[in-house]
Amino acid sequence: MSDRTYRHTVVLDWGTTGFSAALLDESGGVREVKTGDLGIQSVPNGEHEKVLSGELADWRARCGGLSIIASGMIGSRNGWIEMPYVPTPASAADLAAAARTIELPHGDTLTLLPGLTDRTAHPHSDVMRGEETQLVGFGLERDIVVVLPGTHTKWAELRGGQIHRFRTFVTSEVFNTVAHHSFLMKAAKGEASATGQAFLDGVKLAMDDSGRAGGLLTRLFSLRTAWLAGELEQQDMRSRLWGLVVGWEFREAREQNWFSPGDPIAVVGDDHLVDVYEVVVEAFGARLVSAGRDMAIKGAQAIFQHAAS
Amino acid sequence: MSDRTYRHTVVLDWGTTGFSAALLDESGGVREVKTGDLGIQSVPNGEHEKVLSGELADWRARCGGLSIIASGMIGSRNGWIEMPYVPTPASAADLAAAARTIELPHGDTLTLLPGLTDRTAHPHSDVMRGEETQLVGFGLERDIVVVLPGTHTKWAELRGGQIHRFRTFVTSEVFNTVAHHSFLMKAAKGEASATGQAFLDGVKLAMDDSGRAGGLLTRLFSLRTAWLAGELEQQDMRSRLWGLVVGWEFREAREQNWFSPGDPIAVVGDDHLVDVYEVVVEAFGARLVSAGRDMAIKGAQAIFQHAAS
Repeated sequence: MSDRTYRHTVVLDWGTTGFSAALLDESGGVREVKTGDLGIQSVPNGEHEKVLSGELADWRARCGGLSIIASGMIGSRNGWIEMPYVPTPASAADLAAAARTIELPHGDTLTLLPGLTDRTAHPHSDVMRGEETQLVGFGLERDIVVVLPGTHTKWAELRGGQIHRFRTFVTSEVFNTVAHHSFLMKAAKGEASATGQAFLDGVKLAMDDSGRAGGLLTRLFSLRTAWLAGELEQQDMRSRLWGLVVGWEFREAREQNWFSPGDPIAVVGDDHLVDVYEVVVEAFGARLVSAGRDMAIKGAQAIFQHAAS
Repeated sequence: MSDRTYRHTVVLDWGTTGFSAALLDESGGVREVKTGDLGIQSVPNGEHEKVLSGELADWRARCGGLSIIASGMIGSRNGWIEMPYVPTPASAADLAAAARTIELPHGDTLTLLPGLTDRTAHPHSDVMRGEETQLVGFGLERDIVVVLPGTHTKWAELRGGQIHRFRTFVTSEVFNTVAHHSFLMKAAKGEASATGQAFLDGVKLAMDDSGRAGGLLTRLFSLRTAWLAGELEQQDMRSRLWGLVVGWEFREAREQNWFSPGDPIAVVGDDHLVDVYEVVVEAFGARLVSAGRDMAIKGAQAIFQHAAS
């Protein structure tokens, strides 16, 4: 056990397929980062503490007992300890009130943050774990719509200092599975890129309002007919598919009143999907508001401070 | 070469992943059927005649030179001889006029039927190969909408003795790829069934007009939230997914003016998908018109007789 009064903070993102941990300095800046490919589901029941303790041993040796803050899938049914979902609308204080801190054997403390649920979703409440922490990191003081792209992309509306509502779109699932496992894409070559014209053509295809293009299930077939017509190269097929499916997400979001042209939208995340989604925000005529990175770390600290105060 | 005046007819369905051939009697009934798993794409360029000749050798030995009629993918770019697409609206006579007959070395003749294209589709003309023959087999004299379920399901409107227009929906692609390759279905167990309540619940989910259910990309996520809420069993997940996606096809079709409640719809095909789609026709309040099987064989004969007359 360390007898120092200051406890170093570690923000832990332990997900389904890997983990990353950030050791913070006293001013909240990231001092060091560790990543690994050991997902929570690969850890046997009851072994999470042991595994985590081992992974963070050198930081503990150097800094003393750690104050670990974790949100996301570690608090899910398949994780370590199942944490509740706080209902929307929710402030950072509401999330903090549902956090739970436990003492760990080696002198660390672990604070698990709750998830968030939107009970206005139909027919079942929508849920997020981890994205609510990113939203707090982004800041809840502005009234704005925030898109958090991922395997299951979240759209969230911030209003009056709260996360007011959110919805999930499984866009990346549809894209990835169709891109790599369908007959439709059998002629496709190479991987998808969002930086070229083919992606933009897909977004335009999603935006087409001619009334003759049909719905998503029909537009998807136009990737094949475009190729048959000699108007789409094999190496552009997956890129156009990607643009179409992400564009379709924005079309559905617009129809569900998440935005109108000219409205401000921020895209929050830490990977290449942020750039992809930012392109589509602008294609749909919304006003892109820039957001920084590392929102999960900022948000975890902010909620933790609420909880500690 | 046979010197008999009557040539036995063989209707050949040689597709991407297999072939089936039906030897007909003089009254057009099916006398014998052969199937095999040698798809057209497995046959090297220029070898199609040799392979076909071998497959049909015993029938030729018994009946003399055969009159082989073939539609579908054998006439595609990846097939034997690329056949043109006849534009909609098209009658059986229009299809017959574009058929092409070639003499084969062993005394057979091969009549390849054309495909069909709908140039009103946007942004690229829609296409079918084979389904137009099934439509002729079903009969073009009724004014009705016909659904031909498959990997790429076709909706066709018959009007005034012609195939008036059609559109493709890649429903089965989205279902199959998401059902078997997504994180969304990771908790799913067992295969999908369309005969139980779980499938119907999926169709109802597609039909939900509450305004709070979102579009397809959001409704797909409700399969996971339903499971998290303890309201969906793991062995029902794929069935509900199937109902949702096929139901969504009908929803898109209704929005694109393919039908309104009470309108007659026939489902044409030769596999279990016919039963699946018939359930959804009735769930959406359309009037199901029953259709027989073997429409491809009836249609091939009808077009061939037009061509010969």
